[in-house]
Amino acid sequence: MAEKTPLVSIIMGSQSDWPTMRHAADILEELGVPFEKRIISAHRTPDRLVEFAKGARERGLKVVIAGAGGAAHLPGMCASMTTLPVFGVPVKSRVLNGVDSLLSIVQMPKGVPVGTLAIGRSGAINAALLATSVVALEDDELAGRLEQFRAAQTAAVGEEPVDED
Amino acid sequence: MAEKTPLVSIIMGSQSDWPTMRHAADILEELGVPFEKRIISAHRTPDRLVEFAKGARERGLKVVIAGAGGAAHLPGMCASMTTLPVFGVPVKSRVLNGVDSLLSIVQMPKGVPVGTLAIGRSGAINAALLATSVVALEDDELAGRLEQFRAAQTAAVGEEPVDED
Amino acid sequence: MAEKTPLVSIIMGSQSDWPTMRHAADILEELGVPFEKRIISAHRTPDRLVEFAKGARERGLKVVIAGAGGAAHLPGMCASMTTLPVFGVPVKSRVLNGVDSLLSIVQMPKGVPVGTLAIGRSGAINAALLATSVVALEDDELAGRLEQFRAAQTAAVGEEPVDED
Amino acid sequence: MAEKTPLVSIIMGSQSDWPTMRHAADILEELGVPFEKRIISAHRTPDRLVEFAKGARERGLKVVIAGAGGAAHLPGMCASMTTLPVFGVPVKSRVLNGVDSLLSIVQMPKGVPVGTLAIGRSGAINAALLATSVVALEDDELAGRLEQFRAAQTAAVGEEPVDED
Amino acid sequence: MAEKTPLVSIIMGSQSDWPTMRHAADILEELGVPFEKRIISAHRTPDRLVEFAKGARERGLKVVIAGAGGAAHLPGMCASMTTLPVFGVPVKSRVLNGVDSLLSIVQMPKGVPVGTLAIGRSGAINAALLATSVVALEDDELAGRLEQFRAAQTAAVGEEPVDED
Amino acid sequence: MAEKTPLVSIIMGSQSDWPTMRHAADILEELGVPFEKRIISAHRTPDRLVEFAKGARERGLKVVIAGAGGAAHLPGMCASMTTLPVFGVPVKSRVLNGVDSLLSIVQMPKGVPVGTLAIGRSGAINAALLATSVVALEDDELAGRLEQFRAAQTAAVGEEPVDED
Amino acid sequence: MAEKTPLVSIIMGSQSDWPTMRHAADILEELGVPFEKRIISAHRTPDRLVEFAKGARERGLKVVIAGAGGAAHLPGMCASMTTLPVFGVPVKSRVLNGVDSLLSIVQMPKGVPVGTLAIGRSGAINAALLATSVVALEDDELAGRLEQFRAAQTAAVGEEPVDED
Amino acid sequence: MAEKTPLVSIIMGSQSDWPTMRHAADILEELGVPFEKRIISAHRTPDRLVEFAKGARERGLKVVIAGAGGAAHLPGMCASMTTLPVFGVPVKSRVLNGVDSLLSIVQMPKGVPVGTLAIGRSGAINAALLATSVVALEDDELAGRLEQFRAAQTAAVGEEPVDED
Repeated sequence: MAEKTPLVSIIMGSQSDWPTMRHAADILEELGVPFEKRIISAHRTPDRLVEFAKGARERGLKVVIAGAGGAAHLPGMCASMTTLPVFGVPVKSRVLNGVDSLLSIVQMPKGVPVGTLAIGRSGAINAALLATSVVALEDDELAGRLEQFRAAQTAAVGEEPVDED
Repeated sequence: MAEKTPLVSIIMGSQSDWPTMRHAADILEELGVPFEKRIISAHRTPDRLVEFAKGARERGLKVVIAGAGGAAHLPGMCASMTTLPVFGVPVKSRVLNGVDSLLSIVQMPKGVPVGTLAIGRSGAINAALLATSVVALEDDELAGRLEQFRAAQTAAVGEEPVDED
Repeated sequence: MAEKTPLVSIIMGSQSDWPTMRHAADILEELGVPFEKRIISAHRTPDRLVEFAKGARERGLKVVIAGAGGAAHLPGMCASMTTLPVFGVPVKSRVLNGVDSLLSIVQMPKGVPVGTLAIGRSGAINAALLATSVVALEDDELAGRLEQFRAAQTAAVGEEPVDED
Repeated sequence: MAEKTPLVSIIMGSQSDWPTMRHAADILEELGVPFEKRIISAHRTPDRLVEFAKGARERGLKVVIAGAGGAAHLPGMCASMTTLPVFGVPVKSRVLNGVDSLLSIVQMPKGVPVGTLAIGRSGAINAALLATSVVALEDDELAGRLEQFRAAQTAAVGEEPVDED
Repeated sequence: MAEKTPLVSIIMGSQSDWPTMRHAADILEELGVPFEKRIISAHRTPDRLVEFAKGARERGLKVVIAGAGGAAHLPGMCASMTTLPVFGVPVKSRVLNGVDSLLSIVQMPKGVPVGTLAIGRSGAINAALLATSVVALEDDELAGRLEQFRAAQTAAVGEEPVDED
Repeated sequence: MAEKTPLVSIIMGSQSDWPTMRHAADILEELGVPFEKRIISAHRTPDRLVEFAKGARERGLKVVIAGAGGAAHLPGMCASMTTLPVFGVPVKSRVLNGVDSLLSIVQMPKGVPVGTLAIGRSGAINAALLATSVVALEDDELAGRLEQFRAAQTAAVGEEPVDED
Repeated sequence: MAEKTPLVSIIMGSQSDWPTMRHAADILEELGVPFEKRIISAHRTPDRLVEFAKGARERGLKVVIAGAGGAAHLPGMCASMTTLPVFGVPVKSRVLNGVDSLLSIVQMPKGVPVGTLAIGRSGAINAALLATSVVALEDDELAGRLEQFRAAQTAAVGEEPVDED
Repeated sequence: MAEKTPLVSIIMGSQSDWPTMRHAADILEELGVPFEKRIISAHRTPDRLVEFAKGARERGLKVVIAGAGGAAHLPGMCASMTTLPVFGVPVKSRVLNGVDSLLSIVQMPKGVPVGTLAIGRSGAINAALLATSVVALEDDELAGRLEQFRAAQTAAVGEEPVDED
């Protein structure tokens, strides 16, 4: 996807979030949505965050997906510095299973929204699908691929559970 | 807004959610985003939900905002029948303060995303702002109004706290 | 049990729920209650759910046992489209241990009931026992088998704990 | 309903649970299901509980609805002494909002099921509806009334939210 | 201890609670408090529970230690049928880590007390120490052994932490 | 009760705990158990706590009831300096409803037990009843009064709930 | 205090936090610690936050006290841009009682510390006392006043609770 | 560091807290802050705690870091007997993941502050960094080392996440 201007940016607080957030990347890859992926720590690289968030729209980005854990400030702080849609993924934290991540992301005060997904891998996948649904609003071809993805997903559901050993 | 085709649909599980969800309507009104508002109960009017969700894209809607409380199934079930972006607002519930609403909305399994906002009024306002940011991706005038809204919000923050009696 | 018309239907959101829900099947098997087992995803196969729920009574079913995890909408949505008794089993979720599943199932609004059992395997077993107690109301032979099951369960409780290594 | 043999017994731990549990009684009254209502405290009247639970089936009861709050042992202890279906209603507690009631009722160990409804008034209403759905399995007239109740409930959902002052 | 009349009875809901409750037995053994240990399931053996609780005082018992998990009704139901002091140990449950056990035991309504200890092994040890402190009120020799136990415990605390590999 | 040597001491962290803890005093008064009541703050009067706890046994006390809220250290710290039985009452806190109080009191490490009662008024009443049951082990007259109290409590439970307006 | 260079800065996310944070100001006033108070919203005035945090040390500040509610990012983001000690006060939020505020502030990742106080008013008071204890490390006179404050606090604890009507 | 008078004391409730608290020691070592480390159990060695806390200031200590788990009373009780700044580290507990530790430490009543860090290892590291920031207020060389530590931390954040196998 390197040659196309990214429409979606997947940012995350640290390398340790990548095993979760890579699932967002996989979905965007599969659906053909140009994206980039970056490590931006709200706490350890605040300047990088300011630069990223303030320049996001001008670079042609349409959606930001931000994943972080614990006292997860990245999605909300990014949203405070851009009017692009920001989708947050609470990464499962070591001690509180991501409850801290979830509340830190979803309970934003009025005025600065973050659309929050489920804790962990499911949330990362769904952030990518939600970002795709946004981008697809003006891209019929992509909308078609998204419909196909969903149809395939429906078709893949078996009729009866089977024993596995 | 009655004359324009709505781009955003605000749906809610019952009349009792309106005192929360009207804040979403107020923001869309203020920002000039054409919208509609409807009561659709996942549990009491499941057929209405199916009809709404399956027909949403064809009617020209771009975004669905769904508010519900308790075992809040409306946002997720709506998302299961459309590929439009769905943003969920957990309405504060009587006994558990909306924790049940929040978890019922945000913890969607992989494959069907709901972008979830904060519990209650802040979430309703932010759902409208997030929906606006999506619609504004292809509407520069609206993007400008959104930027102005944010700038005014910033300007309205006082320098020092004052005693109020 | 293939030759008898099923009286109980065990439905679940995905194959991954089967290791939990199979314990319900085992109990029904042991007690001689005719049943079927099906995968029906509220989110990935909403049409299948509508068809199942609306046709459940006509097919001769007496009770539906529905297991699901996370934002678990299957039991409640099934209950919204049938007046048969629906018993819900919160499947233990990966990150929140089934607290999300429990609240999504049990906190149904007034008007559409789901009788909810414990999170996980104990809940699956008990859903089957509860379904049996319902079916047994008009089947004295089954009622007798259920009494025997309970008596055997009582008899199996040892008098003193023993060290195990 | 005094002249008919009750099919459903509504029991509760104390008089203070009645403002919640009366909603169950109202529904059974409305749907024409013969019922009784009794105060039975697992902790303050354990003998009464034993006598009630062991004699419930012989008295012709089909379903027990048990409401209790805090460390709510009534539904589970009743279920331990009868094979009738027992539905539990967690009454909202003073300090923990019924979370203690809910967990004390729903987390039953395998072998002794309690079908648990939502905390508070919604749960009481739904316990009555669930009990009705059980009784209606062998009473077509009642099944018809239950269908009508649900249809009326659906019809009562307004199309649009309205401002109320 | 078989020859002495037990002063403390350790009861538990199932054999699976023994790995936790044996720590209570070990402490009573070490301090020389005569005790017995029994499996009594509130749900699977309610008659055994009634017989035990009602006869506890006459058998010469001074204290009951009751351990149970999940919807843990054993301590409270035992306390409802005896005026002996009952100490409850919430056994760590599989899905909710004992939060359900704790709330089911500690949140007793006024009138029937259960002195509740910590979840799991620490709670079992402390239940035995607390029972000993009660028995020791009228047994100076035992009081002395308890003081020594505590003094030894204090003496065993190292001055500085050490690395262990 | 002023003339008799107190057998039970009710201590609490501050005057603001008295509306809760007075219910313990009322029960001891009613049952004729000599007691004292004192304010001892673990945090604001640590020296008073040391003096109290170390001298408790010598003064003839049999049981300490300690109530505190928030980060409630009083019961546990008192227990660390006496081998008398200590019963803790979590006082309902302003922001967390006493969940913080409960966990701070009940989750004691092995070696130093606190028998914990329910949050708030019920817990205060039950702490007094539990203390009475301990003192009554060697006081048959008191044991009789306790039995009567319990019998009266049982007799006071009505047969049927009644409407109150 | 206007004439002295402030040593402590009390910042808060909005005017609505002032009723909580003013208690911090009152303590600093009482103890004679020069301070300032400012509204700085992490989300609505991110630029103001950057400017404040990066310039804090140069302006002679020794400690920052930051109060915020909900998804409370102010303390952590401030700490990311200064090496001054930052103490965070979780302001009680409308729907979750400050649990979200607490976790958003306290669960900071390694590398950027925030010393967190209790939710609400107690936390605001204690943040001021903690800030004072830091400033007093190099100011013996202030240390004396702090000791007196604590001594007066100890002396103010009554001996016995009294009835208040 | 043995030769220098310690400025920071790391105390912990038991040897089992050392694997967590050693991370605090490592940071102080790395930054060159003289420290000591001691085991002081609030519950098992209350006298040692009194002696330590009351003598802390005279020994030249500037900051106390206190780590404890479960009903964690060490930080708060230490703070009750010194006016030095006390920073608390909630050690992850076996059954409740440190939620009990966190609430026991952070929810201190007004008047006695404990600056609380995150649960577990991150909290230990941050307690050391916060203590360093306090000591550095009057030690420019140390302030420089702290700035370098932070700068190095920022520099170590990669630009893009990388796959690791």
